Amino acid sequence: LAEAKSAEVRIVVSNRVITLLTDFGAEDYFVGAMKGVILTRSPGSILVDITHDIPAHDIQAAAFTLNGAYAWFPAGSIHLAVVDPGVGSARRPILVHSGDHLFVGPDNGLFTLVLDQFPAAQTRHITNSAYFLPEPSTTFHGRDVFAPVAAALAEGILPEALGPIIHDTVRLGSAVCAPLPDGSLNGKIVHIDHFGNCVTNLPSHLFPKTAETRPFVLQGNGFEAWALARSYEEGALCAARPFLIRGSAGLLEIALSCSSAAKAFGISVADPVRLIWRKSK
Amino acid sequence: LAEAKSAEVRIVVSNRVITLLTDFGAEDYFVGAMKGVILTRSPGSILVDITHDIPAHDIQAAAFTLNGAYAWFPAGSIHLAVVDPGVGSARRPILVHSGDHLFVGPDNGLFTLVLDQFPAAQTRHITNSAYFLPEPSTTFHGRDVFAPVAAALAEGILPEALGPIIHDTVRLGSAVCAPLPDGSLNGKIVHIDHFGNCVTNLPSHLFPKTAETRPFVLQGNGFEAWALARSYEEGALCAARPFLIRGSAGLLEIALSCSSAAKAFGISVADPVRLIWRKSK
Amino acid sequence: LAEAKSAEVRIVVSNRVITLLTDFGAEDYFVGAMKGVILTRSPGSILVDITHDIPAHDIQAAAFTLNGAYAWFPAGSIHLAVVDPGVGSARRPILVHSGDHLFVGPDNGLFTLVLDQFPAAQTRHITNSAYFLPEPSTTFHGRDVFAPVAAALAEGILPEALGPIIHDTVRLGSAVCAPLPDGSLNGKIVHIDHFGNCVTNLPSHLFPKTAETRPFVLQGNGFEAWALARSYEEGALCAARPFLIRGSAGLLEIALSCSSAAKAFGISVADPVRLIWRKSK
Repeated sequence: LAEAKSAEVRIVVSNRVITLLTDFGAEDYFVGAMKGVILTRSPGSILVDITHDIPAHDIQAAAFTLNGAYAWFPAGSIHLAVVDPGVGSARRPILVHSGDHLFVGPDNGLFTLVLDQFPAAQTRHITNSAYFLPEPSTTFHGRDVFAPVAAALAEGILPEALGPIIHDTVRLGSAVCAPLPDGSLNGKIVHIDHFGNCVTNLPSHLFPKTAETRPFVLQGNGFEAWALARSYEEGALCAARPFLIRGSAGLLEIALSCSSAAKAFGISVADPVRLIWRKSK
Repeated sequence: LAEAKSAEVRIVVSNRVITLLTDFGAEDYFVGAMKGVILTRSPGSILVDITHDIPAHDIQAAAFTLNGAYAWFPAGSIHLAVVDPGVGSARRPILVHSGDHLFVGPDNGLFTLVLDQFPAAQTRHITNSAYFLPEPSTTFHGRDVFAPVAAALAEGILPEALGPIIHDTVRLGSAVCAPLPDGSLNGKIVHIDHFGNCVTNLPSHLFPKTAETRPFVLQGNGFEAWALARSYEEGALCAARPFLIRGSAGLLEIALSCSSAAKAFGISVADPVRLIWRKSK
Repeated sequence: LAEAKSAEVRIVVSNRVITLLTDFGAEDYFVGAMKGVILTRSPGSILVDITHDIPAHDIQAAAFTLNGAYAWFPAGSIHLAVVDPGVGSARRPILVHSGDHLFVGPDNGLFTLVLDQFPAAQTRHITNSAYFLPEPSTTFHGRDVFAPVAAALAEGILPEALGPIIHDTVRLGSAVCAPLPDGSLNGKIVHIDHFGNCVTNLPSHLFPKTAETRPFVLQGNGFEAWALARSYEEGALCAARPFLIRGSAGLLEIALSCSSAAKAFGISVADPVRLIWRKSK
């Protein structure tokens, strides 16, 4: 019976996940057209939106958001990221094969954080137009180049079929903060989330969970935070004063109880912050 | 046998629907990360967004929206609802098994309307951390606790494996309106929809479809509605005056022809309304 | 053998794609309820959102966006489009069978562009209420009429089972621009996209890719464009002046480098534009 079964059924071994991250917004036909192309060429793919609300042309924001999401997807997932102000120009379409994940998009720095984590990642210049739509437009490579390439990968095409390995991928400047001679750290705001929490580039492990919190002050433009809360509720003890919290991206965040820290203190992305260690009480 | 093969069958390991409802917005990595966790642990799950645009921390709005959507999904669906201002605090993660549906989320009143409808529903405190991600954060239980628990349920883990039954679930105050001695009803606005229609807590069955409409006036802050329309188009006869309509959630709504009643009359959630029966003509 | 099958495998008859396009917004229970109805009646359907952010009641915008997306989906896809200000009135629910695609929605002009392309398309008045939810509401046919009809089609119900062919489908006025005696063309803005690019109804093929660009000026309200760029980056040479570009919908668009042309020049949908040919240099 077992034999009969195995002879008889066609097992669909893997339904590849393709995630989508763009700055296209949700209101146009753009995202629908990309998904249509993928499902035409790879009907078994499982499409998952990360977001389409990256601020227009904001490669830095796209890199941050992609980095917070991709690693949670199954090994073998294909991540299609299209924030592409240079569409139609000489900027290269690339494929990054990093750890267990594949990334497809323009060579403009989008994959900086992924590449920072995986120095052994392989990057390829996608040159094989056999996998593009015929006669691609110069304004919508998301639909005409990147979507069909992602579909081809989902159908089992190997990275080497797409183009040659390159070593000069465009990267954004590093967002890592370095300690100063006195032990303090100059950092900056790298993201402001939906709730107005302000994500810094200061890693959460500056405050190990298992040790007592070392006294500190975090200085920003027009505000100071003196406390580290373990949860937003604990932060409520700070009343209307901002506090630090270990965020879900592994970075320290500036938060305000039941309210938007960004709005209350006029904090924007790229604003500088400084973490200074105080003498123990 | 070869013939049988061409019939093309596919083994469906599990096709459980998991819906998602949050106040996370669509622009961050939050929703993507949750979906990645689920698809890693339950690759066959079918993910459906209800919404991620619940106003931040608005448990009441989340309860209303969940209630308008969940019952239309297939029996056995798992509803992941995360509006969770108390994340990281002592508030409990719970599982509600109600009718044919499973609900997973924080114990803060989110499931009040579900529980009101199913007095026999079973609620469990989710205590078995074997089904959480390792070392859950204190700021993102959507990803670290609720998503993996939903995935476990989709993979066939039984509710009893997750934790003990509890009987003291947090509930929001009742939204049911009670008639006054003179037969009139004091109600309130419980939701304002995308089109500016104002949903009251007055049930549509106050005006049975099969009977003639009993004369009434609905009084709000600065407006009165004297007519019940059967459709928005019929309401156009009311010109610039508001009218009542039986809404798709089983509740009476205040509407305005081709326009937002909420904007025109400055109506907000929680505003009081009063339905007074008039003498027949 | 038959027994083995029923014990262990489940035949997936069809994995039909159902796309959704509405003006319901993403914040309400509306879209979730529609998807729940479809997945209850057609569990194997693959649901794909085109958009739910069509401006409220804007049938013209819905027709444009649907047209930019649908053709990219696999043959056999079902497109559910619900922008339906006349819900509950006498307006007819219809099914359009056009080329390889099926369309379901209200008879109010939504499918004008599809019908313009396929004169042989068949349109049916959906009259067979056996495929609706029992006791449909008068305010939410998306959930009660159109979603179950789409599910029925996905499950293999034939169009002829739904109702009779009709020949008097409602259509919007034509958006095709006609040349004037002097060769110039009067056109208009038909869409403004997420990036502020202004899509005209002037076809891109006015400027064949293989020929040198014929000198022109495009005149709008308070602005003129004198250049055609092949990519947005090439348009950067125009600095703060608007330029034309061949858009991804096959129509000429007015764009501005790294910025919103719509905002910069106060351009709105329906604004007139005029394309005048200049003497060669």
